[in-house]
Amino acid sequence: MSFDVLQDKIRAMKNPTVAGLDARIEYVPEHIRRAAFEERGPGLEGAVEAIWQFNRGLIDALCDIVPAVKPQAAYYENLGWRGMEMLERTIRYAKERGLFVIADIKRGDIGSTAAAYAEGWLSGAKIEGQVCKSFDADCVTLNGYMGSDSIKPFLEAAKGEDKCVFVLVKTSNPGSGELQDIVAGDRLVYQVMGDLNERIAAGTEGKYGYTMAGAVTGATYPDDIKQLRKRLEHTFFLVPGYGAQGGTAADVANAFDRYGHGAIVNSSRGIMCAWQKTGGDGHDFARAARDAAIAMKEDIGQFVTVL
Amino acid sequence: MSFDVLQDKIRAMKNPTVAGLDARIEYVPEHIRRAAFEERGPGLEGAVEAIWQFNRGLIDALCDIVPAVKPQAAYYENLGWRGMEMLERTIRYAKERGLFVIADIKRGDIGSTAAAYAEGWLSGAKIEGQVCKSFDADCVTLNGYMGSDSIKPFLEAAKGEDKCVFVLVKTSNPGSGELQDIVAGDRLVYQVMGDLNERIAAGTEGKYGYTMAGAVTGATYPDDIKQLRKRLEHTFFLVPGYGAQGGTAADVANAFDRYGHGAIVNSSRGIMCAWQKTGGDGHDFARAARDAAIAMKEDIGQFVTVL
Repeated sequence: MSFDVLQDKIRAMKNPTVAGLDARIEYVPEHIRRAAFEERGPGLEGAVEAIWQFNRGLIDALCDIVPAVKPQAAYYENLGWRGMEMLERTIRYAKERGLFVIADIKRGDIGSTAAAYAEGWLSGAKIEGQVCKSFDADCVTLNGYMGSDSIKPFLEAAKGEDKCVFVLVKTSNPGSGELQDIVAGDRLVYQVMGDLNERIAAGTEGKYGYTMAGAVTGATYPDDIKQLRKRLEHTFFLVPGYGAQGGTAADVANAFDRYGHGAIVNSSRGIMCAWQKTGGDGHDFARAARDAAIAMKEDIGQFVTVL
Repeated sequence: MSFDVLQDKIRAMKNPTVAGLDARIEYVPEHIRRAAFEERGPGLEGAVEAIWQFNRGLIDALCDIVPAVKPQAAYYENLGWRGMEMLERTIRYAKERGLFVIADIKRGDIGSTAAAYAEGWLSGAKIEGQVCKSFDADCVTLNGYMGSDSIKPFLEAAKGEDKCVFVLVKTSNPGSGELQDIVAGDRLVYQVMGDLNERIAAGTEGKYGYTMAGAVTGATYPDDIKQLRKRLEHTFFLVPGYGAQGGTAADVANAFDRYGHGAIVNSSRGIMCAWQKTGGDGHDFARAARDAAIAMKEDIGQFVTVL
């Protein structure tokens, strides 16, 4: 229930990190690109094939190191419906390899519309009395600007499926403060969002004490994370911003509870694009990604011990 | 530039309304469903075919009455990649019939991720030096919780393409106030969002005085719309909540400027599902939708004259 499945996987691997699968075509090594464009042509179909081969290689290289992957929907929608088809394949393959899949979709809509998204991404559409699954991720990210109406339908869908969600609270980007840091009475807007989210999911706590509705809290604001960890004791955190965006292992350590539970740290380019820093031509992309994932695990392990 | 294309279409038709294309399989008349399930099977492929036939009939029936359609992405993602392929087809067909297409995607992400979404939905992905278009809508809806980083990449993509966006400001749902109505200094959170949005797009005004970044302002909060119309004089409004959700023609009239410009009112179920109220079996769905769209135009015309 709730985040138990993910926390169990993290404990088994002693590694509270998730690898982003956010492939732009430029991130794919030349030899894979060339082969794909030769086989499928230099347009959308070739790009989809190249990224699929790259994703599959990354998943194979990472699946015994990291407990989870996080495909970012934007990079698949970028390639239209063909990209979405490949996203379905990527999610399915990652799950076959034992990975927990967080689909980073940041959807936010209301009522029956939110329910339609939740069916597509988590529980499956009901057609002629049959449940038809599509993207079938284990977890999705959500945007709660529209209020609890935009979160509850996902919790309903997730409940039946033993799945969970992360709601944007304090994001890692430079402009995040423009709305999120505004003073609202005795709180800031992102604290209001975090409080609302914890309240909506109250009662869904699993064996580790965390509800089904986690929060996204950026590593680039470590003081905010420290304070949020105290404030939202039943909320599991997804922490972006480690590495390329400037967050350090010491920064992200603030997201964990005293058992080393309650959080997972994301790295995307740092792992996916590790091959660009080895001096090679990309044939070593899988090994480079694996080495980077191991280095990240060790780096965070200096500050966080998962009990 | 900016909202000029849409405002020109609205003026030509003297009709400031947009028809939602948010088809759930339950909204499709029985005879269309039965034929589609017989041809493609009772699963996702049959549902996609049924909704495609329904959408095409609606577009044919409405294209000389309404200037625009608004497909809601949730109802297509509900059916996985097959639904997304049908969404691409629906957008293409609506544009062929002269309609302006607002893709209701409510995406909100940052930097290069936002740029990837913007390429997929507006300007096309760049692959091997070629621009490859996919969804290719005229306009999208966005969620600005992450700040200006989440809006600017879309404005960049839209600029080159003579397209535009709508950012969520004050939404029409019951829970919208939980975050949006919070007092933040001398403003409310949704006013902060609206001000930020108008500032980001300053300098992109077209011939009607409106920037490229419009705002979603729900018809269910008419006093808020009235006050926002005064506050954001360069912001074009998309107004959901008319009809089924309780907003009246008098309510939505507050969204328009003194020339009857600067806003467009959405109706989804009121038009799509009009056939369910005629007492027929759904064979008249196209005529029922057309009659409902004409009735809506006349209803709003009592309060708004488009000059």
